Amino acid sequence: MIKAVEWTGEHLRAIDQRKLPGELVWLDIYNVIELREAIVTLAVRGAPLLGIVAGYGMYLGIRHYDTGTFEDFYSRFTTVADFLRSSRPTAVNLFHTIDRMENLIKSNSSLPPREIKRLVLDEAIKIHREDEAICEAIGEAGEVLIKDGFRILTHCNAGALATGGMGTALAVIYKAWEKGKRISVYADETRPLLQGARLTAFELVSEGIPTTVITDSTAGTLMARKGVDMVIVGADRIAANGDVANKIGTYSLAVLSKAHNVMFYVAAPSTTFDLTLSTGRQIPIEKRSQDEVKRFCGTLIAPKEADALTYAFDITPANLITGIITEKGIIDNPLKKNIPKVIG
Amino acid sequence: MIKAVEWTGEHLRAIDQRKLPGELVWLDIYNVIELREAIVTLAVRGAPLLGIVAGYGMYLGIRHYDTGTFEDFYSRFTTVADFLRSSRPTAVNLFHTIDRMENLIKSNSSLPPREIKRLVLDEAIKIHREDEAICEAIGEAGEVLIKDGFRILTHCNAGALATGGMGTALAVIYKAWEKGKRISVYADETRPLLQGARLTAFELVSEGIPTTVITDSTAGTLMARKGVDMVIVGADRIAANGDVANKIGTYSLAVLSKAHNVMFYVAAPSTTFDLTLSTGRQIPIEKRSQDEVKRFCGTLIAPKEADALTYAFDITPANLITGIITEKGIIDNPLKKNIPKVIG
Repeated sequence: MIKAVEWTGEHLRAIDQRKLPGELVWLDIYNVIELREAIVTLAVRGAPLLGIVAGYGMYLGIRHYDTGTFEDFYSRFTTVADFLRSSRPTAVNLFHTIDRMENLIKSNSSLPPREIKRLVLDEAIKIHREDEAICEAIGEAGEVLIKDGFRILTHCNAGALATGGMGTALAVIYKAWEKGKRISVYADETRPLLQGARLTAFELVSEGIPTTVITDSTAGTLMARKGVDMVIVGADRIAANGDVANKIGTYSLAVLSKAHNVMFYVAAPSTTFDLTLSTGRQIPIEKRSQDEVKRFCGTLIAPKEADALTYAFDITPANLITGIITEKGIIDNPLKKNIPKVIG
Repeated sequence: MIKAVEWTGEHLRAIDQRKLPGELVWLDIYNVIELREAIVTLAVRGAPLLGIVAGYGMYLGIRHYDTGTFEDFYSRFTTVADFLRSSRPTAVNLFHTIDRMENLIKSNSSLPPREIKRLVLDEAIKIHREDEAICEAIGEAGEVLIKDGFRILTHCNAGALATGGMGTALAVIYKAWEKGKRISVYADETRPLLQGARLTAFELVSEGIPTTVITDSTAGTLMARKGVDMVIVGADRIAANGDVANKIGTYSLAVLSKAHNVMFYVAAPSTTFDLTLSTGRQIPIEKRSQDEVKRFCGTLIAPKEADALTYAFDITPANLITGIITEKGIIDNPLKKNIPKVIG
């Protein structure tokens, strides 16, 4: 299965996801400025993957910093951390990784910076490996929900390209397919940046899974025609009450699923939960450039005098979600009550 | 206000709507083969406009046909009629016009073909002028529903470019604007062919109306944020029970409107009703080329191994519709009971 990023031992290599499916181009990322640029431009994207590259990014940001005192070193660390934290606001995994690195450094303040750097790299590699295992576990936990013959709808890309392993929502699909279930997938194209058509469909057909791309506005009539058995999506951040921030359009899908009695599952690692937020209303929603909506392949598709509204994410309230599939098991409704039982 | 088509006295001129908003290119259409090509490729589109150009198309198809007997002439007429009927299946206006021409010809079978041709052209011009007046009347009937400050969401293009006048859904908006109501409009971009971003936004900003383009999947979160006061869309065909066929995505919008208590209105001329069909399930839904979804500006945006599902329209059931605005007045719920009272 395709790997979105790899650590060469010296630097980070990442697939430039803006160029898929037309071209498979690898970016060589040697420093934190290049990494932040890759994140901001969506060359590298996907909530769990942002958590992984943030770890390598912290190492890239400090590895050439030679200083004698811990205070100087820690000051450099916080500069790098703030620089990466300012890249994208919604996915929490990036923040979790940086917090984890901060704790690591603080609890090793007696070591010389050279040794702390080594620990940071080890931790980054560990986060990467952990995510790979988490994807497997999500897939195993969720695939039991899928019956032979299921037609599954997904939105955006929550697959190998969004993680360090086989994905989150797509891991569930891959595991069901591995076990011989005859399934098919509808991939919402996911405007404006078409991660569904470009990335999800690319991954799925590479694995031989029957895949049909639809425009985002086709999901409703497809459900009305009884063409969808289940919806599975990923998540960028999940509040303590089970409200989910995910790619714009997820909320509409959830409303449509409810109206048509279609199961609506979210698949995400436990690092996607932000238990400091009581509801989804507190999750910051990134707005991106109007050009992402108004231009396509460089062509202006709307009059320049028109505005564009460019929320990158929306909030799906817990009451529309059938369950959340995590590496620790499936969290059923009521989510608010059951999340603490599964997520420590 | 922009005119989508004009009859020069000799031939039909039509804006090539595929090229908007980038370029304003006029097509010169001299025969029915050119006209059918323009319809099939969506250079000319919009349900009421298809009803208009079908009239001119009938004339273009018979005007050079010189024959002595009515039978020969009528045979030619039916060939042209079938050729045009096979262009696009969903919008009923095209079929209504052809039926109207057929009745006209049959009831004048005693006249020489030369004189019948003249009647056909007169009738085509009459249909065109009628539609212009109908648009005005729809606008007047509907604008009373719009309150000062309303933020109105529309889908696809039901404006001047889709009709012989100021549009259907957009006529309501134009009339409210003319009367000084401070309104703003969200235009669903309307994938795959972006008639909302390209055509509706183009029309609205030309009139100075504040316009914001959104991806189709943004409507849900916008309603959840209480950003939409009313939805108005056009229609391609309306069954006797009030079920509405319109551009793909209309159904999703109607479900979302219901879930958020947003008024959902359809605006259409009485020629859009097909009272021979008891429900929307009987309306034929056009499927178009997979390339319309999988390619964009010539670029493949999905892997070639993936399928694409390409319904051009969907059916919105009557129970999701607040009312239908026609040139004869507003039809309120229950639609099935009230349609016969308004539509003869």
